[in-house]
Amino acid sequence: MNPQAIKQAFQGILSPAEILEDGSALLTDQRRRYTGSADLIVQPADVAAVQAVMRFCFEHRIPVTPQGGNTGLCGAAVPSGGILLNLSKLNRIRHIEPADNAITVDAGAVLQCVQEAAASAGRLFPLSLASEGSCQIGGNIACNAGGLNVLRYGAMRDLVLGLEVVLPNGELISHLHPLHKNTTGYDLRHLFIGSEGTLGVITGATLKLFARPQTVETAWVGVDSIKQAVALLTAVQGKFAERLTSFELVSGYALELSSTFSRIGKPVESAWHVLLELTDSIQHESLTDLLAEFLMAEGYENAVIAHSESERNELWTLRENISASQRNLGTSIKHDIAVPIAQVADFVERCAQALQTAFNDIRIVVFGHLGDGSLHYNTFLPHVLDNQVYEYEDKVNTIVYEHVLACNGTIAAEHGIGQVKNHWLPSVRTETEIALMRAIKAQLDPHNIMNPGKLLP
Amino acid sequence: MNPQAIKQAFQGILSPAEILEDGSALLTDQRRRYTGSADLIVQPADVAAVQAVMRFCFEHRIPVTPQGGNTGLCGAAVPSGGILLNLSKLNRIRHIEPADNAITVDAGAVLQCVQEAAASAGRLFPLSLASEGSCQIGGNIACNAGGLNVLRYGAMRDLVLGLEVVLPNGELISHLHPLHKNTTGYDLRHLFIGSEGTLGVITGATLKLFARPQTVETAWVGVDSIKQAVALLTAVQGKFAERLTSFELVSGYALELSSTFSRIGKPVESAWHVLLELTDSIQHESLTDLLAEFLMAEGYENAVIAHSESERNELWTLRENISASQRNLGTSIKHDIAVPIAQVADFVERCAQALQTAFNDIRIVVFGHLGDGSLHYNTFLPHVLDNQVYEYEDKVNTIVYEHVLACNGTIAAEHGIGQVKNHWLPSVRTETEIALMRAIKAQLDPHNIMNPGKLLP
Repeated sequence: MNPQAIKQAFQGILSPAEILEDGSALLTDQRRRYTGSADLIVQPADVAAVQAVMRFCFEHRIPVTPQGGNTGLCGAAVPSGGILLNLSKLNRIRHIEPADNAITVDAGAVLQCVQEAAASAGRLFPLSLASEGSCQIGGNIACNAGGLNVLRYGAMRDLVLGLEVVLPNGELISHLHPLHKNTTGYDLRHLFIGSEGTLGVITGATLKLFARPQTVETAWVGVDSIKQAVALLTAVQGKFAERLTSFELVSGYALELSSTFSRIGKPVESAWHVLLELTDSIQHESLTDLLAEFLMAEGYENAVIAHSESERNELWTLRENISASQRNLGTSIKHDIAVPIAQVADFVERCAQALQTAFNDIRIVVFGHLGDGSLHYNTFLPHVLDNQVYEYEDKVNTIVYEHVLACNGTIAAEHGIGQVKNHWLPSVRTETEIALMRAIKAQLDPHNIMNPGKLLP
Repeated sequence: MNPQAIKQAFQGILSPAEILEDGSALLTDQRRRYTGSADLIVQPADVAAVQAVMRFCFEHRIPVTPQGGNTGLCGAAVPSGGILLNLSKLNRIRHIEPADNAITVDAGAVLQCVQEAAASAGRLFPLSLASEGSCQIGGNIACNAGGLNVLRYGAMRDLVLGLEVVLPNGELISHLHPLHKNTTGYDLRHLFIGSEGTLGVITGATLKLFARPQTVETAWVGVDSIKQAVALLTAVQGKFAERLTSFELVSGYALELSSTFSRIGKPVESAWHVLLELTDSIQHESLTDLLAEFLMAEGYENAVIAHSESERNELWTLRENISASQRNLGTSIKHDIAVPIAQVADFVERCAQALQTAFNDIRIVVFGHLGDGSLHYNTFLPHVLDNQVYEYEDKVNTIVYEHVLACNGTIAAEHGIGQVKNHWLPSVRTETEIALMRAIKAQLDPHNIMNPGKLLP
């Protein structure tokens, strides 16, 4: 079907407000690496409209790319022709069930709105990540988002109790319930979580809620090495257990960049840094003292503890601005990896040596969620700072992934596969596994209209 | 292939110690409801032997029923011909990674041994259920076991970081890693979890560990009604948040039975009872006082708090002996259901009315994990107390499930489907979902040799 015919047909399927006249900004991903094309961009206002879109596209074999807040980092929501199905209008908080600690929301609800709705019911929705002001729950589910609080609360996958999905043929599968125990046959929910829009369109979800923290303590600690940061992690967990909510690693170089960018002085001078946060859902007046005593007793004296909300915000701003501050350095080849925590130090040292041997002027910015072993590992080649750097991507990745896999790590921790990494999938999944994935996709999406070219190699 | 030929062939595949000469006890399930048959019972001693078994059975189209501790409650591990593949010999604790809070074990490791191994490394493996002294991790994973601590730590599904599975054709899929973030394509791990041996043989798993509780407070509280129990649940969670680890409901009749059976006096007299436990991973001397003050302030004065480990054990014995104490009443039709917590009280009332209308002498024993909305709901027909009661099962279930589904609940909370409930699956999963399940099974198990007749209708 040609674009004009598609457009005309959709005027009979959707209301004018559901068809975007100028949506070209939605065709480029956040990192400005990919710009796609679409015959039509639609924003259905309810689940029935999503079903109507899918029924039509299924019948006419038109590709569909689901898109949430378009904050993805792997190009999974950039369309290559067909329909771009943006979920932004499907953004209701449907209901909260406090007794079950559950909230049911539309897929297009912005993460921050879900956090706020939970807070207004005296609960915590713990998923927290840099783009929370614009990313959407459906996208968070589709790529199994991670972020800052996985250490304590798990990743998005762990927070989904029930899902509502429109299948490629327009059929609805709905299991929106707040049940914490349910075992009725194969768990298809977990197939859709992390499937990056290749199996269906997530339209709603029931999510787990938790008690709100009543006490928050935030500290910035300078350490000499990653090994020392790991020792601190083990010691903090030994003392404060699940109260440790975040444990972020920042290299001296990353702090340098962010401090300049943020116009906030460095909390301490050091080769490596840790930003850690303890939370307690009961008022706990002595937690500041306990943390200060602990850091002193364990010999981590090059440290500051936030004594006010504004001091806390400064520390977090330094952490959160690392990504933005790197833009001044040009385009980098970014990695979203995780390795077992005991091996992070060795990995960082060995991988840097290998990269420096291959590219002697390479600069590496290392930071990330050490508490769960995941790292953002960004590599700059100073002689190519625009998108041409991607010509070197496979060569850099070959070295990085070899070291990741040697440590029993993963090449995709929390951003997904999309179109950045799908050709790498065979390095981490067996032929049998990929054949099974293809069979599952063929069963649900026989005409391969759902986000073709993404995730699967 | 005839049994004699199978036996002869296996003498070339396994060692004599891996072939069970008299394993007839393994052919009957724990509840003595089903007795199956097998041409041969094998207990492979390592993963390679499991692969050899599967390769042979795949080639010769011989059905295989995997079996762990044989404590299942839905008949999923009772074979109907072919090979009974018992995992008991595959029982090593492989390794513990304290920094990642992870333990890797063989599938045949007994749950209690895993708990003990975690404890010896200063960690907690939180899955806890009545049969923990004999059930095995592989079975816990295959049926997504629940139990007493799901409220705080999640069900088995939530505790599995990585899986090792021998596929029906003998191929091994192994992702035994301690990573808390990993998103590399469709999550096949969650297909095997809860698949009850119908997709492959789980041989190993990497499991999440947690901080060990340093403080434990246990209370038994008499309440007038389920509504009051739910109000207590909400109040306790509001005050103590995630410290609430267990919250068990016991009917007055269930306590009566267990008290007599256990020769332990009732802690309090009441129509309904709650057994609740708070734990804290930090020493918290004032928790007893806080709990006592809280119960008093909220008006729950008909309560006792355990002041010693032996008092605590007595309270838990009363809870745990409910199942055993019912055996004196004869055979019952048991249900393993869950409904949203806010609806438990209405469900119990309405369902009892409907059952009493249909069977005027029916007796109902209600108890379970109110904290996560799951109930054991056992119904006795006094005029048929042996296995003949199962002739009434569909009629009783029709009434119970109608009420469960009207509340957006589940007909299978934590025991699975097996052969008890597979004909009910179409009442809770759509045709499309069941077709997808069949397609997944056909892709992995084209000759339908894996535990045929279980789970799928």
